[in-house]
Amino acid sequence: MMATIHFEDFAPGQVYPLGRRTLTRDEIVAFAREWDPQPFHLDEQAAAGSIYGGVIASGWHTVCAFMRLFADGLLNRSAAMGSPGVDEVRWLRPVRPGDTLDARLEVLEVRPSRSKPDRGIVRLRAAMSNQQQQEVLSFIANVMFRRRAAAARE
Amino acid sequence: MMATIHFEDFAPGQVYPLGRRTLTRDEIVAFAREWDPQPFHLDEQAAAGSIYGGVIASGWHTVCAFMRLFADGLLNRSAAMGSPGVDEVRWLRPVRPGDTLDARLEVLEVRPSRSKPDRGIVRLRAAMSNQQQQEVLSFIANVMFRRRAAAARE
Repeated sequence: MMATIHFEDFAPGQVYPLGRRTLTRDEIVAFAREWDPQPFHLDEQAAAGSIYGGVIASGWHTVCAFMRLFADGLLNRSAAMGSPGVDEVRWLRPVRPGDTLDARLEVLEVRPSRSKPDRGIVRLRAAMSNQQQQEVLSFIANVMFRRRAAAARE
Repeated sequence: MMATIHFEDFAPGQVYPLGRRTLTRDEIVAFAREWDPQPFHLDEQAAAGSIYGGVIASGWHTVCAFMRLFADGLLNRSAAMGSPGVDEVRWLRPVRPGDTLDARLEVLEVRPSRSKPDRGIVRLRAAMSNQQQQEVLSFIANVMFRRRAAAARE
């Protein structure tokens, strides 16, 4: 069994590669139909007349694809306790059908909780790049992790 | 046919109510299984032992529920052109199975694009409250809208 990652295991500058995911046209349209039904996410003809020149993925689809890789690649072998929020979500370039997105995290800051000694906040930069190594998504995530000392007390 | 909402129709202080949506347990688990498979979103027993004391919705599920109400209630009768990003996403309280979320938008600022005369950016505060009128989600969205003058030129 893999050792569980706790708050103390993070340090500024660490980089976690999280793997890749391809967004197909069917997935882009299905996601948009459910959560973000704007014409330039749904319909090739409408999208061709938009500033994007063709169907692009909902920005929330890109974020969700990141989140799934984050959960599979790191959170679910960690003592993560959820997140109070994220900052500076930037959709830097359109994501188009068939694009393969490569996800990674960089640790920016670690901060023990002042009020709750069992946990700390890790500030991370999340990013995804396409197959041309162009960044398409960036955001700053604040994630709570249990401290190892606290886990040992349980 | 309803008049399309353009950049010029927004003014700071305007509030747009966007309607409500209830997140059922099945929907919460299905969303989490696809996009955010952490134990406290998926499994009642695991969640009971977490700091949340029971299953809570993925924060991205709450955001996506907002987005759908935003698209249905405003974007799809507007000349929206997409978004470069959002700021200060805050998950203020857990969202639990059966919670009914009420979405609204407030216009914070309107800014014509300096480089592109056909559009402007509207800075909005997005918020969702639960059935106890407690805010559960807040974020700042920057959305591009086509200007009416530009549309008339087409």
